[in-house]
Amino acid sequence: MSDASTPKRAKVETTQKNDKVDWRKKKAELQEAKKQRKEAKLVKKLEKQKRAETEASEKEAPLPQSQPSRGRAYTVSVALPGSVLDNAQSTELRTYLAGQIARACVVFCVDEIVIFDEEGEDVKSVEGDYRGVGKKGHACIQLARILQYLECPQYLRKCFFPMHQDLQYAGLLNPLDIPHHMRIDEEFEYREGIILDRPTKPGKGSLVNCGMWKEVQIDKKLQTGLRVTVHINKTQKQDNRLIKGVVVPPHVPRTEGGSYWGYSVRLASCLSDVFTQGPHKEGYDVTIGTSEKGRNIDESTLPAFKHLLVIFGGLQGLEASVDGDQNLDVTDPSVLFDLYLNTCPSQGSRTIRTEEAILISMAGLRPKILSAFSSRSV
Amino acid sequence: MSDASTPKRAKVETTQKNDKVDWRKKKAELQEAKKQRKEAKLVKKLEKQKRAETEASEKEAPLPQSQPSRGRAYTVSVALPGSVLDNAQSTELRTYLAGQIARACVVFCVDEIVIFDEEGEDVKSVEGDYRGVGKKGHACIQLARILQYLECPQYLRKCFFPMHQDLQYAGLLNPLDIPHHMRIDEEFEYREGIILDRPTKPGKGSLVNCGMWKEVQIDKKLQTGLRVTVHINKTQKQDNRLIKGVVVPPHVPRTEGGSYWGYSVRLASCLSDVFTQGPHKEGYDVTIGTSEKGRNIDESTLPAFKHLLVIFGGLQGLEASVDGDQNLDVTDPSVLFDLYLNTCPSQGSRTIRTEEAILISMAGLRPKILSAFSSRSV
Ligand SMILES: C[S@@+](CC[C@H](N)C(=O)[O-])C[C@H]1O[C@@H](n2cnc3c(N)ncnc32)[C@H](O)[C@@H]1O
Ligand SMILES: C[S@@+](CC[C@H](N)C(=O)[O-])C[C@H]1O[C@@H](n2cnc3c(N)ncnc32)[C@H](O)[C@@H]1O
Repeated sequence: MSDASTPKRAKVETTQKNDKVDWRKKKAELQEAKKQRKEAKLVKKLEKQKRAETEASEKEAPLPQSQPSRGRAYTVSVALPGSVLDNAQSTELRTYLAGQIARACVVFCVDEIVIFDEEGEDVKSVEGDYRGVGKKGHACIQLARILQYLECPQYLRKCFFPMHQDLQYAGLLNPLDIPHHMRIDEEFEYREGIILDRPTKPGKGSLVNCGMWKEVQIDKKLQTGLRVTVHINKTQKQDNRLIKGVVVPPHVPRTEGGSYWGYSVRLASCLSDVFTQGPHKEGYDVTIGTSEKGRNIDESTLPAFKHLLVIFGGLQGLEASVDGDQNLDVTDPSVLFDLYLNTCPSQGSRTIRTEEAILISMAGLRPKILSAFSSRSV
Repeated sequence: MSDASTPKRAKVETTQKNDKVDWRKKKAELQEAKKQRKEAKLVKKLEKQKRAETEASEKEAPLPQSQPSRGRAYTVSVALPGSVLDNAQSTELRTYLAGQIARACVVFCVDEIVIFDEEGEDVKSVEGDYRGVGKKGHACIQLARILQYLECPQYLRKCFFPMHQDLQYAGLLNPLDIPHHMRIDEEFEYREGIILDRPTKPGKGSLVNCGMWKEVQIDKKLQTGLRVTVHINKTQKQDNRLIKGVVVPPHVPRTEGGSYWGYSVRLASCLSDVFTQGPHKEGYDVTIGTSEKGRNIDESTLPAFKHLLVIFGGLQGLEASVDGDQNLDVTDPSVLFDLYLNTCPSQGSRTIRTEEAILISMAGLRPKILSAFSSRSV
């Protein structure tokens, strides 16, 4: 997984090749890089927390065949370069664009959003625009942070998202309104919560703030501050001071309840890491690249899958992402994917923006995903 | 067609029913209404110009059957309430949202965008929020103006769009990149232009600025300042000082050239006017309403059509648009349309925004439109 502050290394190499070193500049850059590393760590901490549970629990997860039919066994991931933010024309619009991406993914029940660094790790070490310092180089982390912020239920945000410059214009963001963003008195069998720092009697589990009037007592003692998914027991004594619940892996509302439950966010240091560093032991079994140079979506069908990955390019398309990746020898992106699709044949604009392409492509893939599973029960 | 300043009338009735009249306020409102009427006129002038030609030329247009196969005989119109702009959280985002709507329509080759006033003409005359004055009431006209501005080829904008407050943040708008937005040295058989105020020899036609290095001499003398579509003659003498061309109706690049050629904009004073005041003599022959309460798009097919109309609601859905229309007795919007479709079954967000719904719905309808015509040649 990427450390989004890696451009720092590129700079070190640059200065080695130049005789004159501007030490003041270098120091500032190193400091900035350190700051970015720290920030990336924070972002990843949250990310890891959600993913660790996913990974651990996938092993125990029952096989698709044994799922009750209301559950969804497969996952859908979307990947895009963080550089898309750099196309925004103001800091407000940068935030707004991140929000558009989040909403596009949520509308189509995307389970994982992968943000990759289009410039790769060690590329542009000698010449070219080093962009580790300043607003621009920060795109991947900022996008990740805004996506995580938006995905988090409102009642947990103050716990997980302290004030941060990246979230300065968060007030402009349209809410995602995902099912797990529940109102205080909504009744549902699952809820997201945070483990409270509250003493409990021996033999009793931790208390959790699940955004309800009462606190929830779970079956286990867990570390304070952890974000958890709780299954609320069906029968509750009305007059109890506490609600009873059981901690479940975060995929359970999807695999057993059949409810969309938000997305996880992953940072990848280059395009190839998108494929290789995923959270699923078996990897992604069907991958789709998107491009106006791809094959007409109307003439394509999807095979059934466990973990689908749909990849979008930035301003310069997936060609640029391939170019920027040292691990990839190819120049034609199409060879990297199971399918390389033009999801908007006969487009009326010369170019479709990435945030638009997500909505259009997922709208085009939606019925094809359904068909892929229509012969078997999922 | 609507005069987008009509809320003024509503206010007059209000004051008649109240005994105390605040004359200073009323005068300000009347003045504002007059200003808005004036602005609406300007917007409509441009609109009329494009439509007049369309209407006149449709009569002469050959029937679909006789079209050369590269042309497209049918049209697609999209309608939405101007009130969607009022959901934006800043004046910059208001402009950006208008741009998103324009781009969504262009990507799917929409030929006409109809903006209707959701509040109707005489409704809310007694109570409720009169919004004729101030930024809010202005939504329909501002949306129309931004859409027209964006549709106009860059090289003609300074002629047709003098500085205006509605266009204050036009710099934030993403370009539409429609085929008729041509670079100066692009070669194509059609071009948009403006009739120049330049004397020509008797028997010679007017000179036109088509955004090329040389001016174009057309076959007719036309009024200075008119926007025209020009067919550039295939063979041109290289050393000529002028390029030769012929004025054609604006639908010709689509019907004969098979190229998407931008959209016209129409203002409608209420939902019912969207249906009845269209530019086509025969009216719209297939109409589609969109709603999450509609029928699953996957289970629907489209019949072939000449003029398709797809209608979107605002923040409160098409129910609110129906409520706000005095001409409509119904409460259930579905009865107004040939098809009432849920274009995003199993949506992962509780609500889809209108600008997103346009991209999603048109992406869903695109293959269905193709299928509707696949048995006959278009
Ligand atoms: C601005 S576009 C890239 C355009 C770039 N000039 C190219 O040739 O690919 C950004 C991204 O949107 C997606 N995209 C744009 N048009 C598409 C289409 N017709 N079909 C599928 N994806 C598209 C692709 O993921 C693309 O990398
Ligand atoms: C914010 S939504 C309106 C929501 C409103 N509460 C309702 O119940 O209709 C704005 C518009 O987006 C479109 N829309 C939203 N979801 C849709 C869906 N699933 N299918 C088709 N159109 C949808 C409709 O045109 C709707 O009027």
